[in-house]
Amino acid sequence: MVQYAASHLDASFAALSDATRRGVLERLGQADASISALAESFHMTLTGMKKHVSVLEQAGLVMTEKVGRVRMCRLGDCALEAEAAWMQQQRDLWSARFSALDSIVEDLQRKETWDGTE
Amino acid sequence: MVQYAASHLDASFAALSDATRRGVLERLGQADASISALAESFHMTLTGMKKHVSVLEQAGLVMTEKVGRVRMCRLGDCALEAEAAWMQQQRDLWSARFSALDSIVEDLQRKETWDGTE
Repeated sequence: MVQYAASHLDASFAALSDATRRGVLERLGQADASISALAESFHMTLTGMKKHVSVLEQAGLVMTEKVGRVRMCRLGDCALEAEAAWMQQQRDLWSARFSALDSIVEDLQRKETWDGTE
Repeated sequence: MVQYAASHLDASFAALSDATRRGVLERLGQADASISALAESFHMTLTGMKKHVSVLEQAGLVMTEKVGRVRMCRLGDCALEAEAAWMQQQRDLWSARFSALDSIVEDLQRKETWDGTE
């Protein structure tokens, strides 16, 4: 099984566990934005938005850069790659397991039909 | 954009933000297990594991059932569907945006080449 840095996944899933922070990622997916523009969009104080952006930045999901007097935010380079890969890995495992269970159920049903027709 | 219940995503991403809880999901992806077997696998007290399983259960990622004196755990029915869909939606948006940026850069480079050859 591919291993991802647990602490990275801890930080990014924690960052994603808040609707405003997910909203910020959706917004930055469309265009870069300043922290104050984000605060305005989400009807939030500048301090409140700074905290959310800081959590996203520490998780590597967002990058910020000071341009003149404005701090601009853009999506991080990782683009949820490790998180999506972990999730896909689980879904593949589960789906393989569910398929195996389906086969067992089908075998049992077939056996039952045979037993009934004997 | 497809909307998912924000509170559901809040709970499930928070549940995923812990390496032990992700480990439990990986383990249950292979086979159902009792809470005490999980506690043993993860070198954890029964009380500690009960708390982790409870977080996963509240997020709908795990289901538990009392079988005799043992509480058995299995994967929830949702199989990370909403979480994976949200993530894929973001990745699609970002990749569309990066492609658009690539086109702009290519256009600029082409224009520069033309200007240079005029």
